[in-house]
Amino acid sequence: MNEDLARERSKATFSVERITNLLDGCPHRRQRRRQLEAIIERDPVFSNDDNIYLSRKERHVRAIAKGVRLVEVCGKLGIGTQEERIFDSPDWLTLLNAIADDLPLGIHWVMFTPNIISLFDDEQQAKWLPQCLSFEMIGCYAQTELGHGSNIRALETTATFLPEAKGGMKGGSFVIHSPTLTSAKAWPGTLGRVGTHAIVIAQLIDGKGKNHGIHNFLVPLRSPDTHKPLPGVTSIDLGPKLGFNNMDNGLASFDHVVIPRRNMAMRFAHVDEQGNYSKKQVSRAASKIAYITMMQVRAHIIHEASKHLGIACTIAIRYSAVRRQGYNATDNDTAQELQILDYKQQQHRLFSSLAAAYCFFFSGKKVLARLNDMEARLAANKTMTKAETTDIHASSSALKCHTSTIAGDGLEDCRKACGGHGFLQCSGLPELVCTYVHHATVEGDNHMLPQQVAKVLLKLVQAVDGGQELSDYLNCDCGLLIPSIQSILGGDTPQFTCTASTEAELQSMSVLLAAFRHRAARLLVDIYRLMQTSMAEDGKSAQDAWNEALVEMARCTHAYAQFLLLYNFQVGLEDEAKRCTLGTSEIEVLSQLTLLCAFSWMERSMGDFLEDGCLTPEQSRWVRSGVRRLLDAIRPNAVALVDAFDISDFRLKSVLGRYDGNVYPALVEAAKRDPLNQTEPGPGCEQLLRLVGGGRVFTPTTSRL
Amino acid sequence: MNEDLARERSKATFSVERITNLLDGCPHRRQRRRQLEAIIERDPVFSNDDNIYLSRKERHVRAIAKGVRLVEVCGKLGIGTQEERIFDSPDWLTLLNAIADDLPLGIHWVMFTPNIISLFDDEQQAKWLPQCLSFEMIGCYAQTELGHGSNIRALETTATFLPEAKGGMKGGSFVIHSPTLTSAKAWPGTLGRVGTHAIVIAQLIDGKGKNHGIHNFLVPLRSPDTHKPLPGVTSIDLGPKLGFNNMDNGLASFDHVVIPRRNMAMRFAHVDEQGNYSKKQVSRAASKIAYITMMQVRAHIIHEASKHLGIACTIAIRYSAVRRQGYNATDNDTAQELQILDYKQQQHRLFSSLAAAYCFFFSGKKVLARLNDMEARLAANKTMTKAETTDIHASSSALKCHTSTIAGDGLEDCRKACGGHGFLQCSGLPELVCTYVHHATVEGDNHMLPQQVAKVLLKLVQAVDGGQELSDYLNCDCGLLIPSIQSILGGDTPQFTCTASTEAELQSMSVLLAAFRHRAARLLVDIYRLMQTSMAEDGKSAQDAWNEALVEMARCTHAYAQFLLLYNFQVGLEDEAKRCTLGTSEIEVLSQLTLLCAFSWMERSMGDFLEDGCLTPEQSRWVRSGVRRLLDAIRPNAVALVDAFDISDFRLKSVLGRYDGNVYPALVEAAKRDPLNQTEPGPGCEQLLRLVGGGRVFTPTTSRL
Repeated sequence: MNEDLARERSKATFSVERITNLLDGCPHRRQRRRQLEAIIERDPVFSNDDNIYLSRKERHVRAIAKGVRLVEVCGKLGIGTQEERIFDSPDWLTLLNAIADDLPLGIHWVMFTPNIISLFDDEQQAKWLPQCLSFEMIGCYAQTELGHGSNIRALETTATFLPEAKGGMKGGSFVIHSPTLTSAKAWPGTLGRVGTHAIVIAQLIDGKGKNHGIHNFLVPLRSPDTHKPLPGVTSIDLGPKLGFNNMDNGLASFDHVVIPRRNMAMRFAHVDEQGNYSKKQVSRAASKIAYITMMQVRAHIIHEASKHLGIACTIAIRYSAVRRQGYNATDNDTAQELQILDYKQQQHRLFSSLAAAYCFFFSGKKVLARLNDMEARLAANKTMTKAETTDIHASSSALKCHTSTIAGDGLEDCRKACGGHGFLQCSGLPELVCTYVHHATVEGDNHMLPQQVAKVLLKLVQAVDGGQELSDYLNCDCGLLIPSIQSILGGDTPQFTCTASTEAELQSMSVLLAAFRHRAARLLVDIYRLMQTSMAEDGKSAQDAWNEALVEMARCTHAYAQFLLLYNFQVGLEDEAKRCTLGTSEIEVLSQLTLLCAFSWMERSMGDFLEDGCLTPEQSRWVRSGVRRLLDAIRPNAVALVDAFDISDFRLKSVLGRYDGNVYPALVEAAKRDPLNQTEPGPGCEQLLRLVGGGRVFTPTTSRL
Repeated sequence: MNEDLARERSKATFSVERITNLLDGCPHRRQRRRQLEAIIERDPVFSNDDNIYLSRKERHVRAIAKGVRLVEVCGKLGIGTQEERIFDSPDWLTLLNAIADDLPLGIHWVMFTPNIISLFDDEQQAKWLPQCLSFEMIGCYAQTELGHGSNIRALETTATFLPEAKGGMKGGSFVIHSPTLTSAKAWPGTLGRVGTHAIVIAQLIDGKGKNHGIHNFLVPLRSPDTHKPLPGVTSIDLGPKLGFNNMDNGLASFDHVVIPRRNMAMRFAHVDEQGNYSKKQVSRAASKIAYITMMQVRAHIIHEASKHLGIACTIAIRYSAVRRQGYNATDNDTAQELQILDYKQQQHRLFSSLAAAYCFFFSGKKVLARLNDMEARLAANKTMTKAETTDIHASSSALKCHTSTIAGDGLEDCRKACGGHGFLQCSGLPELVCTYVHHATVEGDNHMLPQQVAKVLLKLVQAVDGGQELSDYLNCDCGLLIPSIQSILGGDTPQFTCTASTEAELQSMSVLLAAFRHRAARLLVDIYRLMQTSMAEDGKSAQDAWNEALVEMARCTHAYAQFLLLYNFQVGLEDEAKRCTLGTSEIEVLSQLTLLCAFSWMERSMGDFLEDGCLTPEQSRWVRSGVRRLLDAIRPNAVALVDAFDISDFRLKSVLGRYDGNVYPALVEAAKRDPLNQTEPGPGCEQLLRLVGGGRVFTPTTSRL
């Protein structure tokens, strides 16, 4: 064990295990996680040891083998083998996390099977779910097209009804067709090489030639015997990517592929044997459950933001404790160099990400719990207000957008904080960053989502402005903004001023939350007014006024997300304190992180707080000095706080972040394994000998072009 | 040609060619560049067509071949073949840029040969420069060690004098030795596999055992006949990296390697045959020239920031003109979708990077011109003040730090602005981003450089505060801050208030520059006072007070860099206007970019301008609305402004950025070439057939662990 790390660990003021239990959920869950991780780590099929030296093709093949092995392991352990909803099994999720590599088969579990459960009728599910479970089908979800992403109304793929009488199958068929180059399905994971079936989203054209908009169809892609593509199907991999290269994101087109009529998802709509389309009467609750299942993916992304920041901070903070650079000016040159973790700017960049990792955990947990609660209420046929459903949509969108932005930037900052060595693949950081950043684009691009958030929040402003009944908003996240919106719309002067009269008074979450709440509400009302002005005074259309406000919508969305994150962090901590799962020392150190989150976010967006007098210039100075004081306070616990994430060396895959801190020997061993180093002299040296053997090729001439 | 791009080009209000000439320097240079680019593009050795599908080893070997071919091409064209300073040849630089791929041989030209010229004496140069030119030596520059980066005083490699009498060579020797694991030379490009010689930086221990600190030594690494390592030398590649994988960044250690005494760099120091060390008497000018040569690398990095942003903007803006997504709410669904370039948030993220690309160009040009001018003055034995030399050090450090930060973030933002397709390697953006980001770490880590800047700028504050003579600062960049510093230290109340009384008045570069100048000076004086308070009131040591101020030093450095960038942009434009190289329409559109730069930087750091009343809240609103107005103004010229960078499709290497806009067919062709798509079914499918063939492996059991 590296001496510096040992000393750091001995300085911790809190119980690392207690915080690990909090993150895992309970001591039992932590124990079970470690048990399952041990199973993965000792199985050579799951080795990640040579990942960084393999070609894309080699990694893809290895990742397929890992997926197949995971199926076997699940079978042996009896995990999820009897349940269609394997993705709900905590053990299965733990195993997937433990593998610490991307699996092409993942989509089958997390998107394909859930889609069959959500959108296909009981008879269809009875037929196909067993095939999902037994892997007679390996599925993917094919929505996005080469030329069509966010605007799914514009998808071009068609599913045209073909009656039996005109050559369709018995009972009628659909013809799946890609009419143009841009209509090729692009990006679905598992579609390129691995999947045997796809849920294809296509424009449904009924027996009379009428288009009923997009619907889902189960389309066989490959033969279960030979795995070769079926007639009319072209399905290839989309090519090398920035990251996530194990996955065969696909590019597929359909040339008049005929499928049975009953391969259409028929839970909420129906086409009969004559090609007549009808919407089905289903309970309102049933349709909402489908919607909630989809939103759980966003809760997952919020959680992933926390987890990924946790991994990056573990690597960067441990390495910063081991790495020494620069002398203390008062010592003489022969003294040991300083730990780089003692430099204030290193603390500033790393501890704010550490605080965010903890902060995001509480929001991920809350959003997921809220969705699960809704699902249970709906299953019990209780009602949900429109305010509630749009609210969770807005919250999860804002939080997805903000957390994945902060995490993407934070990961890259942790990588840079490791200096040159963070540029090495063996640090684990390049692949972590490169694979993570797709979270900014998927499930609603982070630059599109603010419109979704603004739509919901502006309705609330309208309701407040119009004096409407607001009781539906009482249990909503956005309802928290109501007092601030009322005060701003009511023209209170000053609308809001932070009450802290000393630096110490500002270090209170209730004081800070009030400021964050006001700021989110103020930016929201600003958009409301900007749009009114654009239309009324500048004569713009509603569309142009909306476009004009897009930049401010993004600003407001991030402000709203920050308020929710801090609120959930604070309430989450209070709950843990009540439940006595944490002692005072754990609460104290987590409270420091709450404050640092708030202060560092204020510091970055200080203009938002100053421009309407929410903070005074004097208070803004307290924010900056407060950040410095918090860095000092967190410093002794920094290594213990990343230890508490309890990420094994197997999952870290980093020579810099290893638990024992023996960084440099591990780095040298990793270098030796590069294919460039397997021969002496190195590859391509015959070219060099043409040069070094006396400059034969470099004969100066006087001819110029 | 894509219709949208054709229409965009027809809307341009200025001459694209005139701006291209500005960027190239003159019409002749543009012509010559295109001529040289054509030579590279038609030579199959330089093809980049399959780069993204190759393994690291294949790319390295290809990059060596490209380097050797470049030597041949230079020979044929007579470029740089008679000059030691080939790196000063504009034709050579143009060829290197035209290749659009990283060459392991590059270091030989840009670091190794210049180091021989700077630090070795005339006799040594006479012996070795011909070998550099003829490639009898292929060299690298080995400074950084596994455990030692920025703090070069702590380097561990030793060069111990060994007299002839005790077994040294005739005339004495040095023994190069790596005493520890952490002393291995790590990161030098070309050191791992390609270089035959290294300039090794080592602690010089003289004949009496006294350490004289670090000096440079020319150390042979590999046999010119076999290219195998010489006895005592271990030299391997450092392993796979985030980017820049053509390059063999090395890891080398020396086990008592004996070299001739005269392989020590002896221009400024000397060790005689008895091992006596002495500093040499050289002209002050000569020592400064060596220093200037090193600073030219930073000017190069500023220029690269501009160039890389230009490439990324070319891809993202052209693609945003081609890509359509989302309907106009007032049209019906069957209408064509909107160009994503018309969305305000897309303009907001892309045009600010476009403006920065143009802005950085002017500063890169200015810093380089200033260094060249200094070099010429010194060569003519004119004097330079200490203020001048420290000033260019501070300016180039601040500009390197800021431009490479903004460019790194901007490249990634351009990548994200291309949505999912920006994640594909064939977009060109992943490699562009991943290879670029090392600029944040090299040549002074961006988080270390602010200390260098602050050291110089704080001296200026001290000089002003102490009432010292300031005339030396008149021709200095930092001298521009003097009136602001005087006003702040003099306690003027208010210190400064922006004079704009209307939104239109704020859209003036002289008004904005005054605000940026005040902000930089104010943040600087804040550090001065923070350190004084830390020491006087909080009783901190000078070292602790310095550490306490590091975060603010970074903030101040970026503020200072922004002021210089805007100042240089504005002055540069005025010069061009005077020289009549540009017409009024070109000046107008570039002036819009100047304003957008200033406004968007203000927007991002609004707190800096509000917290001391430099801007009023009302003015801050004008900044935000001003940004929106400028986006509207720039929109019609956006495509033409990236066309003016004149980056050929060969250099762009992007299916999304192609000049003709035929994005989707190119993307599909690129996908087809992935190694995963060369067989049907795909690789690894035998694993899948184990699953899909009836679920044989997935036999549920009841055993649980």
